[in-house]
Amino acid sequence: MGIRTAVAGASGYAGGELLRILAGHPEFEIGALTAGANAGTELGAHQPHLRSLAGRVLEETTPDALAGHDVVFLALPHGRSGPLAAELGDDVLVVDCGADHRLTDPTAWEAFYGTPHAGTWPYGLPELPGQRDALRSTRRIAVPGCYPTAVTLALFPAFAARLAEPDVVVVAASGTSGAGRSLKPHLLGSEVMGSVSAYAAGGVHRHTPEMTQNLGAVAGEPVTVSFTPTLAPMSRGILATCTAKARPGVTAAALRAAYGDAYAGEPFLGLLPEGQWPATSMTLGANTALVQVALDEAAGRIIAVAAVDNLAKGTAGGAVQSANLALGLPEELGLTTIGVSP
Amino acid sequence: MGIRTAVAGASGYAGGELLRILAGHPEFEIGALTAGANAGTELGAHQPHLRSLAGRVLEETTPDALAGHDVVFLALPHGRSGPLAAELGDDVLVVDCGADHRLTDPTAWEAFYGTPHAGTWPYGLPELPGQRDALRSTRRIAVPGCYPTAVTLALFPAFAARLAEPDVVVVAASGTSGAGRSLKPHLLGSEVMGSVSAYAAGGVHRHTPEMTQNLGAVAGEPVTVSFTPTLAPMSRGILATCTAKARPGVTAAALRAAYGDAYAGEPFLGLLPEGQWPATSMTLGANTALVQVALDEAAGRIIAVAAVDNLAKGTAGGAVQSANLALGLPEELGLTTIGVSP
Amino acid sequence: MGIRTAVAGASGYAGGELLRILAGHPEFEIGALTAGANAGTELGAHQPHLRSLAGRVLEETTPDALAGHDVVFLALPHGRSGPLAAELGDDVLVVDCGADHRLTDPTAWEAFYGTPHAGTWPYGLPELPGQRDALRSTRRIAVPGCYPTAVTLALFPAFAARLAEPDVVVVAASGTSGAGRSLKPHLLGSEVMGSVSAYAAGGVHRHTPEMTQNLGAVAGEPVTVSFTPTLAPMSRGILATCTAKARPGVTAAALRAAYGDAYAGEPFLGLLPEGQWPATSMTLGANTALVQVALDEAAGRIIAVAAVDNLAKGTAGGAVQSANLALGLPEELGLTTIGVSP
Amino acid sequence: MGIRTAVAGASGYAGGELLRILAGHPEFEIGALTAGANAGTELGAHQPHLRSLAGRVLEETTPDALAGHDVVFLALPHGRSGPLAAELGDDVLVVDCGADHRLTDPTAWEAFYGTPHAGTWPYGLPELPGQRDALRSTRRIAVPGCYPTAVTLALFPAFAARLAEPDVVVVAASGTSGAGRSLKPHLLGSEVMGSVSAYAAGGVHRHTPEMTQNLGAVAGEPVTVSFTPTLAPMSRGILATCTAKARPGVTAAALRAAYGDAYAGEPFLGLLPEGQWPATSMTLGANTALVQVALDEAAGRIIAVAAVDNLAKGTAGGAVQSANLALGLPEELGLTTIGVSP
Repeated sequence: MGIRTAVAGASGYAGGELLRILAGHPEFEIGALTAGANAGTELGAHQPHLRSLAGRVLEETTPDALAGHDVVFLALPHGRSGPLAAELGDDVLVVDCGADHRLTDPTAWEAFYGTPHAGTWPYGLPELPGQRDALRSTRRIAVPGCYPTAVTLALFPAFAARLAEPDVVVVAASGTSGAGRSLKPHLLGSEVMGSVSAYAAGGVHRHTPEMTQNLGAVAGEPVTVSFTPTLAPMSRGILATCTAKARPGVTAAALRAAYGDAYAGEPFLGLLPEGQWPATSMTLGANTALVQVALDEAAGRIIAVAAVDNLAKGTAGGAVQSANLALGLPEELGLTTIGVSP
Repeated sequence: MGIRTAVAGASGYAGGELLRILAGHPEFEIGALTAGANAGTELGAHQPHLRSLAGRVLEETTPDALAGHDVVFLALPHGRSGPLAAELGDDVLVVDCGADHRLTDPTAWEAFYGTPHAGTWPYGLPELPGQRDALRSTRRIAVPGCYPTAVTLALFPAFAARLAEPDVVVVAASGTSGAGRSLKPHLLGSEVMGSVSAYAAGGVHRHTPEMTQNLGAVAGEPVTVSFTPTLAPMSRGILATCTAKARPGVTAAALRAAYGDAYAGEPFLGLLPEGQWPATSMTLGANTALVQVALDEAAGRIIAVAAVDNLAKGTAGGAVQSANLALGLPEELGLTTIGVSP
Repeated sequence: MGIRTAVAGASGYAGGELLRILAGHPEFEIGALTAGANAGTELGAHQPHLRSLAGRVLEETTPDALAGHDVVFLALPHGRSGPLAAELGDDVLVVDCGADHRLTDPTAWEAFYGTPHAGTWPYGLPELPGQRDALRSTRRIAVPGCYPTAVTLALFPAFAARLAEPDVVVVAASGTSGAGRSLKPHLLGSEVMGSVSAYAAGGVHRHTPEMTQNLGAVAGEPVTVSFTPTLAPMSRGILATCTAKARPGVTAAALRAAYGDAYAGEPFLGLLPEGQWPATSMTLGANTALVQVALDEAAGRIIAVAAVDNLAKGTAGGAVQSANLALGLPEELGLTTIGVSP
Repeated sequence: MGIRTAVAGASGYAGGELLRILAGHPEFEIGALTAGANAGTELGAHQPHLRSLAGRVLEETTPDALAGHDVVFLALPHGRSGPLAAELGDDVLVVDCGADHRLTDPTAWEAFYGTPHAGTWPYGLPELPGQRDALRSTRRIAVPGCYPTAVTLALFPAFAARLAEPDVVVVAASGTSGAGRSLKPHLLGSEVMGSVSAYAAGGVHRHTPEMTQNLGAVAGEPVTVSFTPTLAPMSRGILATCTAKARPGVTAAALRAAYGDAYAGEPFLGLLPEGQWPATSMTLGANTALVQVALDEAAGRIIAVAAVDNLAKGTAGGAVQSANLALGLPEELGLTTIGVSP
């Protein structure tokens, strides 16, 4: 008998991706599926690609519906996870794909979200130096945001090896599923196809403090991040172009060596061969972050580009990876490094 | 009787867009259409959207074929325009959409192109401070590259108003037509759809020296540009996210005012209302650059985002705009500010 | 001073395309712009590509707002045009892009729409045999549906020449703008990109009776049409694959000759050269229908494929074409046969 | 130790999908990977999504390179498999994804391919009535074409239950990967994005005789198929809209019941709930065919729409499914019914 697992928010995109991964995982047994407005309908009406679960009826997202499971994945709008988790018991593994418990600094939380801080949970990014151990045996996991996942994985080797100044500029392109299934005019297919657009530019995107938190922790000093997200005409994927001022004397060889070292032994991180730059299609459906790095000597900047699937490694895959650790399972169990392409 | 006009490279994407604009222009009369490998075939086999010209037979690109016209537009691979122009006569207006005559610094040319410099022609970006007058009555025009068009238009107001330090980071997304009609595996639809990818990163893209040339001229000091181009799953459009370190004391209000001033009276530049960020779909088929700007105070950077149609304002539209000036016609003649959307 | 023109439904896709065409038309002067829920906002918030009109404030769609114009274009949900038109005066040209007045048979209307029939207006498809004269001087025009435009133009020559049996099967792919700007989950970019889907199959799509009406009128006998619409991952365009059983003895040469004859002199219809099949990109933004036809002798069917831009020739362009006729202007005025591609 | 498996044509799209599936299959061990022009390069240069195989060097496609394997998958241009298979030994399971051995009628082969017929192999579509047993223990498998897979699975229940007349019209939309990785202008991203186009219409597509062969076998009488393929702006997926004239007296209930019966127990066929129509995104990366069927009483036709992933169930997944049968493995082994969406 498997690990009884519930998914709250099962009719959304993150919930659907969790179910896709969980359905192929040898240890999890899928229990309650809950939803908000879609409660009472069949999963197949919203996630027709999940054939084996299509007939499951969605329950209302309540503590009662989620009770009696070993693991509960929350794929809910922010602000929802704290109260639910409080009623789930300390022995239940709660994996929150929302933002509520990612930030350690209440001031940063309040500045960007405008609500009281709900407290900090262990941050579910095992590849962040020192973080893997913090996830073993925890019963609360804050899954990183999709953009911070890409940016942190792209730049931590440069900061860990003291090759970068704390002056970071990031421009990232995301597929539309990153915005969820909300019915907003700018997310209509007619609007997004054939068009790339910027949004939340100028330092106001809510994932910014998560990036400064992660990179600052690795750098050992405050890091400023100028972050501009853009929306690209694709359903999935993030391509994050991350640049940092290079410290004096950094060489291309030293940079490449640092990345090689940092990624060694990491099953889900890949440094591409020299000359090959990432494309999001390389990671579709896979739990990988693929990275290339170069030194622009004329501009004095390190350029690291990462591709991730925002729903897989960027959300649901990362969530399962951390849950594997927390449950004492092999970290890679049920996760693939092979994408679907073309 | 109109201005006799030839287009060399008529079966490519830039050539096609030139013909689309010229066909709707009240003064130009379309004469010879030439091509390389496609010579001898009908235009409609390659440009079926140009109905009124579909039956025209493409000639070989030779000085003879191009002789006898008042204006010759060249949409050819780089290295081709110099020899052709030399045979066309000084009284013929030659508008080169290629790179050959854009750079003023032979060293930069040779570093990025690896061939001897062919000389510098007046640079066809009327909006660049001081440039409009240089285009009146010229008989040689070097049409700017598509990326430099977007980046220069996005950032020149900040430099002109002395609000920016010469430390620029640009990440731009381009539609695939920017790469032309060349048969390369990474340009196949199966590869590009659903995927954003980086390429020519790390300071090696050939449009980089054109950006430093333009911004340096406005700034009055050398400007470094870290430029990363990305390929987005769309046929047309460039979204350029351009950031520059802000000078001390710059305010958001001063920034916005500088852009308002710089764009005032420019028919093809638009500063969007506050809160509205550019999307490439706003400019499809139009000769406009639409820009939004913000100050990221925490990161200390100016963020200016520009959308242009790489084939229209970024190539063929810009070419016709400059040709209008050179011919003494109204600058806006035959050009539209209204895009096709959705 | 131009022809004073109002557009009701200006914040939608059909309304936006009407404005794009009207803004480039030499005779129309754009007056009131009205909307439903978007009344009180600026047009540029919804149609940022229409630069010259971006600052216009949308009024509520009322008879008062529309009064005082020579022409009123209605781009409204069905059921809205009848009452409005009744208050606009018989001397005002009312061009209805909605469905209300297209069908001549009240029974068909009620079967497919479930509401009382509002009466029939002259049908705005000038290329339909005999129809052009009916549009001259009319003050009421029912603009055809986008699918019926494509299907009728693709098949009328075969019926007019008595080459086809009244047994028609149509499968058409449409871009998402055909569904309008309504906020429905299946129209989200994340859902439509990378996917083709069927909908309203099995004879229930509301455009079906319009097809049988048009083709039956040309055939002089009842025609059955099996119509399956599909949604394709593009913003614009219809590709309609139309097949009809061939009458005994029909030859490919006779078929091609019939199409050549039927399209001769039609400025907006094009029969492609043999071997070239239509693509919707050939017609983007243009007022053209491009068609290819073949005889499948083994299957005994005529195959006619048409490409149109659903918003241009399929809605707004067709509307302006018919309005030109009604106003005594040249039929082609302000309309282009040249698409935007790639 | 696993079943030693070679893949010929590993750098193409079908080869890549075979490797994606084989890498996740518990019984196959991936041996030689061969290619044509790409021989000598690393797989990762062409299939960067296949991380665990990225460093493998491609060998030349020769009998020697393929020798010593238990199973050889051929993903080659047609005309190549016969000679290779002859040298591979009768005990080797050869699974040919090409067309060479699909047709039973040499005349049909020669009419559509223009070369001598290479002989017929057992047809790898286990769901075709009677076909499953023919695949057990065979050492030669002809994998069906992608379109015939979709069309046959969509219509066989109607013919098996004697509900359909032998008068079939099919229009199918395919993603661009169906055309392979060949460098042709019409397959460039700039051409296919934002556009649906028809090709090979009028009865000339080479998959047509395969459809008449399959449906005729089920019907017990010759079936005519009018087949029009279209190219849609997506990388993967086929949506096949298949219509057949209904026999007199057929009811919607009888039709639905026939499909329910025919699909019962088939792990990879799904009849969607009433009212839900297939989308190709429901099947991306999965080995499923999802179908909906309706009776259009006014037109007297059965409408069956099928979605498949052309590379998965339509090629590589179907190949592995049949190989499982031939090798005595569970038919579903290593294959998923869960797609990747959105």
